[in-house]
Amino acid sequence: MLEQLGKAAKIAAFELSQCSTAQKNAALSCIADLLEQHSAKILAANSIDIEAAKAHGTSDAILDRLLLTHERLATIANDVRKVIMLADPVGEVIDGYTLDSGLKLQRHRVPLGVIGVIYEARPNVTIDIATLCLKTGNAAILRGGKETTNTNKVMIEVIQDALAQTQLPSAAIQSINNPDRKYINELLKLDKYVDMIIPRGGAALHKLCREHSTIPVITGGIGVCHMFVDQSMDFDTAFPIIINAKTQRPSTCNTLETLLVHTEIADLFLPKLSQIMADNKVVLHADSSAFEVLKHGVANVLPVNDDELRNEWLSKDLNVVIVDSLELAVEHIREYGSAHSDAILTRSLASAEKFVNLVDSAAVYVNASTRFTDGAQFGLGAEVAVSTQKLHARGPMGLEALTTYKWIGYGDDLIRC
Amino acid sequence: MLEQLGKAAKIAAFELSQCSTAQKNAALSCIADLLEQHSAKILAANSIDIEAAKAHGTSDAILDRLLLTHERLATIANDVRKVIMLADPVGEVIDGYTLDSGLKLQRHRVPLGVIGVIYEARPNVTIDIATLCLKTGNAAILRGGKETTNTNKVMIEVIQDALAQTQLPSAAIQSINNPDRKYINELLKLDKYVDMIIPRGGAALHKLCREHSTIPVITGGIGVCHMFVDQSMDFDTAFPIIINAKTQRPSTCNTLETLLVHTEIADLFLPKLSQIMADNKVVLHADSSAFEVLKHGVANVLPVNDDELRNEWLSKDLNVVIVDSLELAVEHIREYGSAHSDAILTRSLASAEKFVNLVDSAAVYVNASTRFTDGAQFGLGAEVAVSTQKLHARGPMGLEALTTYKWIGYGDDLIRC
Repeated sequence: MLEQLGKAAKIAAFELSQCSTAQKNAALSCIADLLEQHSAKILAANSIDIEAAKAHGTSDAILDRLLLTHERLATIANDVRKVIMLADPVGEVIDGYTLDSGLKLQRHRVPLGVIGVIYEARPNVTIDIATLCLKTGNAAILRGGKETTNTNKVMIEVIQDALAQTQLPSAAIQSINNPDRKYINELLKLDKYVDMIIPRGGAALHKLCREHSTIPVITGGIGVCHMFVDQSMDFDTAFPIIINAKTQRPSTCNTLETLLVHTEIADLFLPKLSQIMADNKVVLHADSSAFEVLKHGVANVLPVNDDELRNEWLSKDLNVVIVDSLELAVEHIREYGSAHSDAILTRSLASAEKFVNLVDSAAVYVNASTRFTDGAQFGLGAEVAVSTQKLHARGPMGLEALTTYKWIGYGDDLIRC
Repeated sequence: MLEQLGKAAKIAAFELSQCSTAQKNAALSCIADLLEQHSAKILAANSIDIEAAKAHGTSDAILDRLLLTHERLATIANDVRKVIMLADPVGEVIDGYTLDSGLKLQRHRVPLGVIGVIYEARPNVTIDIATLCLKTGNAAILRGGKETTNTNKVMIEVIQDALAQTQLPSAAIQSINNPDRKYINELLKLDKYVDMIIPRGGAALHKLCREHSTIPVITGGIGVCHMFVDQSMDFDTAFPIIINAKTQRPSTCNTLETLLVHTEIADLFLPKLSQIMADNKVVLHADSSAFEVLKHGVANVLPVNDDELRNEWLSKDLNVVIVDSLELAVEHIREYGSAHSDAILTRSLASAEKFVNLVDSAAVYVNASTRFTDGAQFGLGAEVAVSTQKLHARGPMGLEALTTYKWIGYGDDLIRC
């Protein structure tokens, strides 16, 4: 079954690669319109998914992600219209020069081809990824969370309808609707047709893809983010940044998970931290020296273990670790971090520069919240995923990350000497 | 054992990432000098490898790749000195801007980290890859062909000696000297320490890496290259380009393997092709319609099968296929090619543009030999590998392909709203 999907996607990708930006935008505009026109049908399908999920005792958090409403659907349609406004990276001449041999060489930006996306039970991602792939002339094979099967099925029908109405190949966007997980494994082996796999989900999904895929995988999205408060930092300025990084949206990958505090300021800093975290209903998980101070504070505090330091809380929980120097803060980040987003709070120029040089994460901040690691916040206009690996794209991935280039060489009947 | 190598490499990579270009160049200079000073020792080790290979009945072609001489060693040392002259891509600020939030964001080019390279029995590659990795601040774990075990061992000692003499970490360049192939599989799973795998070898090695690696792999190096002669091309101009592409160095991946000839000119073109290929000792492998014409010619000709059309000859053998149109030439390339290098020979502007748009290969040429696909010919100064996949780097990979970037954000005590 997937062989058929793959073959059709590859043919569609070839057609899409020849489409103008205007043609692609017309399809996007039609998708937005049809999402609104068919909202009743989509919401009805979504109700079935919601009921089934409730019957399975799905958590409120997941139900909320799964739920579509008229308002949410309107937002999704408008997000599609925003993608129309973005510049199309395809066709850009990246660079070019004439070589000594006489070869006139240019690099042209072209679509990647076929993109496989495996994601959680979020119906908005279906539309989001489909439109970003279409905008960049890529075909996509989508595999959403099993809880969204009915919603996704209708949404894909709407997209394919829009593609047909605007003379683009319907197979440009396809989905695997069978919830059997074996199809994920099949998709990961479809290297004959698929050029890139984007997993959007937890650590287990990323591991599965890394271990089983014969297709290049963009891993990421796991953020064990750190903030180091050095001894030069003034407390009153530090706390709002820490609160923002921890509490603005705790379930996101750019949320702060571990606060590193310089030993020189720990005795004064930690009692105030305890007060403020208690006010913000944050539970602290402290290493042994921090625990000795924090246990006298007002915030809930528990001893932290090695495993907790290596994983995301994704909740209002914060690890607190005392370090003796900037170098040891960096060492902690290298050992326990996920190379996503790490920050220093400092008044020292030398410390700031040292930190950004030594910390090798996708995003490194000085006196800013880790919450900024995001396609929109970075001015990319869109976010396909956040990569924490080093090849192809790192950090928030915009439209450009869905493209590659080809070298085009013109010769005057040229041979190599 | 590999766990140790990986750990040491990761620490070395961290140190290297902090080195200045001057420090890295000093190490390269020392490597070049020591290669010359220790030439007797290196050549002695190489003799042992050569004798062992001869005893195993190794082919002359492989023996020639394996063989080091004083002259070849001098060339290798001078190639190291050329790498010193190349610009260091590390530290480049790729782009930067201030966002509406006030975040001052820049992308800085940084080393990838640790690179695993698996290659054939070519001692020059050991030095080549080691120096390119060092130049870009990367550590490397090398696994050369088993026939070069003794040569590589001594060469790695020389490199590590030079690193120590210039105060760089010796573990920056390590090798797996045990010829047991199980260590290749172990290297491919070392994702905790290794950031990228570059296989340099045949299709089987690339397949092994794609299927077993949990680390991103750069696949490539397999070139089933095509040249399409359209009906507007003048024959006298076409033949020198075809001869160059096929015969200049038949064992390379950018060598022409299949000639596609437009049906309109086939009856006149093929007899001349036969004459010229006979003069150049090229054996033809023709599809059924081309065979009907070529069987009357002077060149040796055999019927070609589907399998032969999908694989590299890497010898003075050339497939010849008649196609009815440019579109069918493109279809053939899409079906049988390896997305490496494909060319059109034409006098028509419209055909040239159509061909470069429709053919999605790493390099697409108009009126030029496919032999140009090469780091040096492309002006990259060096060649790490030739990628035929679409992520990270495509076509010849220069120093930049050994780097990634990190996002550095400076805020004025900035929180996300």
